Amino acid sequence: MKAARYFDRGDIRIEDVAEPEVQPGTVGVDVAWCGICGTDLHEYLDGPIFVPPAGHPHPVSGESAPITLGHEMSGTIYAIGEDVTDLKVGDNVVVEPYIIDPKESTEPGSNYHLTPNMNFIGLAGRGGGLGEKIVVERRWIHPIGDIALDEAALIEPLAVGYHAFVRSGAKPGDIALIGGAGPIGLLTAAVLKANGVTVIMSELSPMRRQKALDTQVADHALNPAEVDVVEEVKRLSGGTGADVAFECSSVNVVLDTLFDAVRPGGVIVVVAIWGHPAQLDLQKLVLKEVDMRGTIAYMGNHPDVIKLVQDGKIDLKPFITGKIALDNLVDEGFDTLIHRNDTAVKILVSPSGRGL
Amino acid sequence: MKAARYFDRGDIRIEDVAEPEVQPGTVGVDVAWCGICGTDLHEYLDGPIFVPPAGHPHPVSGESAPITLGHEMSGTIYAIGEDVTDLKVGDNVVVEPYIIDPKESTEPGSNYHLTPNMNFIGLAGRGGGLGEKIVVERRWIHPIGDIALDEAALIEPLAVGYHAFVRSGAKPGDIALIGGAGPIGLLTAAVLKANGVTVIMSELSPMRRQKALDTQVADHALNPAEVDVVEEVKRLSGGTGADVAFECSSVNVVLDTLFDAVRPGGVIVVVAIWGHPAQLDLQKLVLKEVDMRGTIAYMGNHPDVIKLVQDGKIDLKPFITGKIALDNLVDEGFDTLIHRNDTAVKILVSPSGRGL
Repeated sequence: MKAARYFDRGDIRIEDVAEPEVQPGTVGVDVAWCGICGTDLHEYLDGPIFVPPAGHPHPVSGESAPITLGHEMSGTIYAIGEDVTDLKVGDNVVVEPYIIDPKESTEPGSNYHLTPNMNFIGLAGRGGGLGEKIVVERRWIHPIGDIALDEAALIEPLAVGYHAFVRSGAKPGDIALIGGAGPIGLLTAAVLKANGVTVIMSELSPMRRQKALDTQVADHALNPAEVDVVEEVKRLSGGTGADVAFECSSVNVVLDTLFDAVRPGGVIVVVAIWGHPAQLDLQKLVLKEVDMRGTIAYMGNHPDVIKLVQDGKIDLKPFITGKIALDNLVDEGFDTLIHRNDTAVKILVSPSGRGL
Repeated sequence: MKAARYFDRGDIRIEDVAEPEVQPGTVGVDVAWCGICGTDLHEYLDGPIFVPPAGHPHPVSGESAPITLGHEMSGTIYAIGEDVTDLKVGDNVVVEPYIIDPKESTEPGSNYHLTPNMNFIGLAGRGGGLGEKIVVERRWIHPIGDIALDEAALIEPLAVGYHAFVRSGAKPGDIALIGGAGPIGLLTAAVLKANGVTVIMSELSPMRRQKALDTQVADHALNPAEVDVVEEVKRLSGGTGADVAFECSSVNVVLDTLFDAVRPGGVIVVVAIWGHPAQLDLQKLVLKEVDMRGTIAYMGNHPDVIKLVQDGKIDLKPFITGKIALDNLVDEGFDTLIHRNDTAVKILVSPSGRGL
């Protein structure tokens, strides 16, 4: 079968690899669609980061580069391993792409996403969504019912936004400020809107601001080059400031803005992956008693996220801005996201070519 | 009456001032003891900070420099204003030294300590504990029963530590790491110990480490110049790291240590006042889902703090390292704390000279 293999920085190859074997307790999934994640781009441009370099196998998967890429996948079950009784061939599913040390609990609430050696399917081994087929342990498979398979490929990044929302403690009626309207900023906004939160986004790119407004995930999309975001958030919140804020840009001046725009006792959730140190005026944290909280990936969130989409509370279709074949992964996928990422939100790849 | 008046940076004078008048709804307090706070030192060395400079009156108090200093005070009621029915002359009390905009609620839970224009008695007007007498609104007076008046002067800084403890969410059985064993670090440790938390302190000064051990507020006092604090905290916590950490030093390398020593999902409370920007690796916040929380002063904490002391859960006596007369405020008080602050924890001033 065909798969996109990550060898090293700047070196991704589409190769023929052996089909994975279905084992007891696992499920074979015929991948329909796999999204390209910002993390994949980071691996391509600056990696290996999550990918275990050749000769340094991951302690749980035992694998190192080359590995098959892709962790935002949807598909259809084509085979069921022994001991799996609650799923059947033909079911549409998504994968919660975790590699967790077998000695750790993975019950919801156990913070399995923060355990030592945590890594991701499609980054540290165990196949990937950028291959035609994948075999995954039952516990990481989530049935999606009648959600369309292309939209379902966005459930993984949507779960990132959902987990950030949970971390923030935002309640219906709250006002949220999101710094950055990239894919994660937009999907976090979608979760907030679906939960009755007023969303203000700050974003330099006019295309992205327009996307935030067209998809109706933002109530207000501000251009920080033109308006005083802090003053505008205060005006929109009756003078007090935002209840919660989300840092989705990894830009220091955006973080500073969130600190000024959040109300006393407010919460700032850092969603972005920062590759450089941040400089911070801790007086703003102290004198306003701000909570600054990290959030990474998801933990027990997939069922709630799937339900939001099934109930029609979030429409994922407008965030799909491209569908490409596996052979065009780098030139039509990565290059578009790296060089023309204002218009692209989520590009989906069909490893088998079906659906194109 | 005599009072210590702050005129400007480096300019504090002991002067004769008029006695304050007891108004309806207020209580007249004959000050027994007033502690010197780090904030007072900052005003002396680098101020005016909280003090409204001459010509720039505070919007609520209407006062500006010179003002009477001192906000860590205990005393005895000598007069009761009209409408005050639940206190009597002779009661021993402490003052929660707030100046809050009259349009804001000051009910516990209303976050009155985070309201605009919040400032402190003894920094922004309305008299101070470094004067012989003070008249204070009833709502800021807390009776202390039979707590000794000298120890009671430490209830205000103890409330700072108590509020930091509340902000941390620490529970009995948790492990706390405190960076810095100055007065606030030690008093925060005392609150944690009284609440069943294991306390590890990191502190360069041998005198301060010894004080932390002698007062039994720390279970372990580590010298970061000699031991790897992160490894030691992990060892003492069975490999996971501290549940909560408190930044009481305003030193960047200490903050970095707390981030490395706290467990995934842990909490870091910033208690110190940082006069300079902090540099922070936000990856540590994100990948461990750390909560970094600011804390300032107190809000509705005084009754709980007074009860802790009344119940004998905290012994404040060992933290009193000096008692001086008002006339010696600068030479024996400020200069000792600034130049020989390793041995001094809390120096108490008797404005009237009684008790010396």
